[in-house]
This record gives sequence, C-alpha cells and structure tokens, in this order.
Amino acid sequence: MLDEYDIIDLITKRFGELPEGYVPIGDDVALIPPGRVGESVVLKCDMLVARTDIPPGMSWKMASRKAVAMCVSDFAAKGVPPTAFMVSVGLPRGTSRANVVSLASGLLQASREWGVRLVGGDTSEAGDLIIDCMMVGFAGHIVRRSGAGPGEYVVTSGTFGETTAGLRILIDGAKAEPGFKKRAVSSALLPKPRLAIGLAVAGCLSSSIDSSDGLAISLHTISEMSGVGIRLAKLPYAKGLREFASRNSYSAEELALYGGEEYEIVGTVPKGRIQEAKTKARSAGCELRVIGETVSAKELKGVALPDGRKVRRDGWVHFRSKP
Amino acid sequence: MLDEYDIIDLITKRFGELPEGYVPIGDDVALIPPGRVGESVVLKCDMLVARTDIPPGMSWKMASRKAVAMCVSDFAAKGVPPTAFMVSVGLPRGTSRANVVSLASGLLQASREWGVRLVGGDTSEAGDLIIDCMMVGFAGHIVRRSGAGPGEYVVTSGTFGETTAGLRILIDGAKAEPGFKKRAVSSALLPKPRLAIGLAVAGCLSSSIDSSDGLAISLHTISEMSGVGIRLAKLPYAKGLREFASRNSYSAEELALYGGEEYEIVGTVPKGRIQEAKTKARSAGCELRVIGETVSAKELKGVALPDGRKVRRDGWVHFRSKP
Repeated sequence: MLDEYDIIDLITKRFGELPEGYVPIGDDVALIPPGRVGESVVLKCDMLVARTDIPPGMSWKMASRKAVAMCVSDFAAKGVPPTAFMVSVGLPRGTSRANVVSLASGLLQASREWGVRLVGGDTSEAGDLIIDCMMVGFAGHIVRRSGAGPGEYVVTSGTFGETTAGLRILIDGAKAEPGFKKRAVSSALLPKPRLAIGLAVAGCLSSSIDSSDGLAISLHTISEMSGVGIRLAKLPYAKGLREFASRNSYSAEELALYGGEEYEIVGTVPKGRIQEAKTKARSAGCELRVIGETVSAKELKGVALPDGRKVRRDGWVHFRSKP
Repeated sequence: MLDEYDIIDLITKRFGELPEGYVPIGDDVALIPPGRVGESVVLKCDMLVARTDIPPGMSWKMASRKAVAMCVSDFAAKGVPPTAFMVSVGLPRGTSRANVVSLASGLLQASREWGVRLVGGDTSEAGDLIIDCMMVGFAGHIVRRSGAGPGEYVVTSGTFGETTAGLRILIDGAKAEPGFKKRAVSSALLPKPRLAIGLAVAGCLSSSIDSSDGLAISLHTISEMSGVGIRLAKLPYAKGLREFASRNSYSAEELALYGGEEYEIVGTVPKGRIQEAKTKARSAGCELRVIGETVSAKELKGVALPDGRKVRRDGWVHFRSKP
C-alpha cells in the first residue's frame, strides 16, 4: 500500500525542478520570488470534494485539473496572472497507484495549461478524495466585485447553461443531440477558465466576478456589493441549450441562470470603454457579450429579466444544493 | 439547516475589518500588502482531517486552532513571521450552528495568539470535518532543511514524548500521574508552536525542521537533506515521561522518538554560535537543548543513539500509521 512519502514522490517527480529563487519542494514551506515592487500578493483557495464536485465520468486526472481550474478562474475574473499553486490532497486509505498517477497528471496538465508552478502541498488520509488548491499571484490591484456604477454595461465572457446541461447528461442521463452533448460534457469535465480574456480586459472592467456559483448569484453579488440594480437585455444562452431543454422538459432559463459550474467572467464595463474591451477580448480569442445594463439601486433593487420578472438569488449553494 | 452563506457569515463576523491594503473578505480572491522590497513570499498548507487528526476530547475550537498551529509551527521552524492565513473548511451536511461557532472561535484564538490575519477561505460539504489552513508570510530567506554541515550541534526547542503520551491517555486510556496527565493532554489538545524561539534563533541555525512528524523522522530528514550523520548524546525526554512509560509498559524511547505531533523545532547550530543561540532562545522564554552533534556522512550514515544503535526512519506517516 502506498504511504504518504510514496504519494508525494509519485506527484512531485512528474514536475521539473523549480527555477532559481524558489525553494525546492520538500522543505517545511514553499518560497516564491516576490512580484514587482509595490505589487500585492493575491491568494485563493478552493476545495474540491469528490462527493459534491466530481460527476460520473470524471477521472482523477480531470478532477485535479479542475481543482486548479477553479482557482485559475478566480484569478482570471480579477485580472491577475497566477504564479504558483499548492495542493492539499486528502485520499482514502488504499488509494491505488494508478489513481495517484492520474491525479498527478491532472496537476501537471493544469500547470502547463495556465503556466502555474506547483510549489508544495500536503497529503492526508480522508474518507473521500479531497483536493484543495491554493493559488498565489501578484498584482498592483484587482478588479473588485464592488466597483460597478449605474449606467454601465453588464458583460460576460461566454454563454451559460452548457455545463449544467453536461452535468444533467452525466448524472441524470438527459438526452442530447451529439454535437451539443460533446460540448456540454466536455465543459463539465474539462472546464476552461477564461484566463486570456480576463487578463486582456481587466483594465476596462469596473467590477467582475467568477461565475462558478451560477449566473444569477454572480449578478446578484455584483448588484449587492456595488449597490446597483441590473436590468438584463437578454440571457446568454449556450448554443443548442433551448433545444436540449425542451427535449428534456427543462427550462433553458433555469439552466442558464441557476446552474453554476460555468467558469466564465461576469462583469461591468463603463459605456465609453466597451469598444476597447470588445477589441481586447477578441484579440484574446474570445467574444465579450453585453447582456444588460446597471441602473441605480433606487431605480431597481436586484436583478431583473428583460420582461421585468426578478432573477432569484439562487444557484449552487453548498449544503443546500444537491449535485 | 445552515447553508454555505450562513457558515461564512458565522465565521467572518467574529473577525474585525482588515486594515488598509487588504481586500475585505468576500471577493473572489484575497489581497495581502507586499513584504519589504526583495522579500519572497512564504507559503504553507496543512490539512487537518477529523478522522486522523482529532483525538477524543478535542473540541471544534481546539481543532481549528490546531489547524492554524500546524502552519505556524512550520513558519517558526523556518524563522519566518506569519502574516495571514486562509482556511478551506469541509463540513458534514447538517453541522450544527454551535460547532461552526466553536470552529470560528478557534480561528479567532489562533489569529490573536500568533498575530495572523484571516483573509479568506472556502466552505465545502464533506463527509468528515476537514480544515485546510494556508498561511502566507514574507522573508528574505528561510532556514532550510539542507543546511547542516558536519561538526555542528543538534538542538531542539523542547522535549519530546509528552504529546504522544497525551494521545495515549486520550485514545487508549493510559494512566498517568495528575500533573503529567494535565501537561500531556494539554500538549495534545492545545499545541504550542515555537514561534518566539523560532524567530529569535533563526539567524544562528544552519538547518531546521518542524518536528510534527516525530523526532526520529525530523533528524533523519536533516541528515538526508544536509548529507550529514547525526550522533545523539541524549534523548530530550519530557519531564515525567519515563515514569509514565513504565507505568503503562510503553518504551519512553519509542514515545520520544517515533510519536510525532510535537510542534518543536529541531535544527543544527555551528559550534561557534551556540552561546548566542542559547541566549537568544532564553530571551524568547525558551531553553534550546543540545541533544547531539552532526558528523560527516562518511563517518556515520543516518542517526545514531548514544549507545550506537540506529534510530529508525519512522514516525507519523499518513496511510501507514494508525491514530
């Protein structure tokens, strides 16, 4: 049976040596060279737990990649390039070598995909697979959730509903047209955080949030923390979502607004900067979508749909939602 | 039933506002003002899992304090003052408000005890209580595990065996004299990492390690990573340990060497600096104990007891040891 040292060795030996200025993995702490003068330290931790975060069909490689992706998405939304990460891994006793190797491959893939270095971690015995990723980076400032003013455009880095559809396909066996099924399942198993667009448009955003708890909660959070109302002009439905929804008697609106697990950026852009933002997004290979406008909190409290109905403050909530 | 937002609120409302330069808890990431120019970022994560790390008699308050203490101890061993921490918490569904409040109190106590700020975290549903602490600080350099040369003193910040004795009392009902029992149980439930002495003597240490996996493994690790042998002159038995061991038919040597969970510093000091190190330790309210000397790896491979027997490379190893 593998012990702690075997597991650490199986993971770390896949990674090359850290460059000058870092302390090699294996000391009591990790050491990361400082950012530029005046840059603050940006930190994020996000815990993935198998029982709630790993759908059927997700390998350990996909799971460990996703744990890193969850943090990368937060950095993307704040316009901060991630530098390094650590992982605390909880594994059931008797975990196979193949699963540990799979987990290590996912971390390596994540490290290459987003240019982040693994600098350390911790291994513990747990009842369930647990991967807690901690990410560090440097920035002079970050785009806050609280920076939106009235009269700005509300934007997203992509469409919504596809990941939730993917989870319904994987968990509930929902039926889908082959092309949609492939895209939906892939977005659930191999989420693609919007790092390139996040870094490209950060300078144009007055506020932003990572949408992984769902579009509705993301909009409500910006609304509450910025003190503005949000009037949606349209919902950013994923391509094929409405067909998928009607085929399975789901509501496309519910899937797009309340599903969660979409690693998009939701934010606000002052009107005078929208062309610049769109151009920068396009140069990063991505389309920035305008989905509505902010108004004063006096004019509207919360978030309203095009037809005036209110968007519920609902989405993926741990201890409330069921996977 | 409490949901994720209730839990985050119960924890964060106990902490005051973060000072200028920090981003308030509740954004996608935490932001920590930089260290002094040229200082690197020091990071550590350590995951506490109830099933292996929480003995009978340990409250949730003690558990969350211990999770932070585990990281503080690593910072202490490296001579680095910790600045801030984040916690990823995994909680069973249906966790009571009282337990969440208890957990929050332990984090607050830790924050005050070691002067570290809580800057963020994550909450997930898990089968078991899991507290993953991630700590950050700043330093120009750290004391490494690999810096020992031959002909130096091997030192510890305290004695060994008491915590293991405490765990045997709590888990196995081992018998003990009241004074020893009180000290032993307290060291298991309320570990005291050696931050003051660690910061005071760091400049005198050529190598060091946090001893939480046990004295034997700590000595072996310094021996291997520094490429030296270690000849022990005496074992740093805790006061009353031998009496406790004989009363319960344990071996005091086994308890002191292979127990683990003692948050002491084990290190090496060049002979010319030992008086300075002892004086600095004393000024930090602590005695630095010389327990042996390093020799060349040619003369001795590994770690030897005063009578010449070898110290096994054994201690607390996840997936191998049983609590």
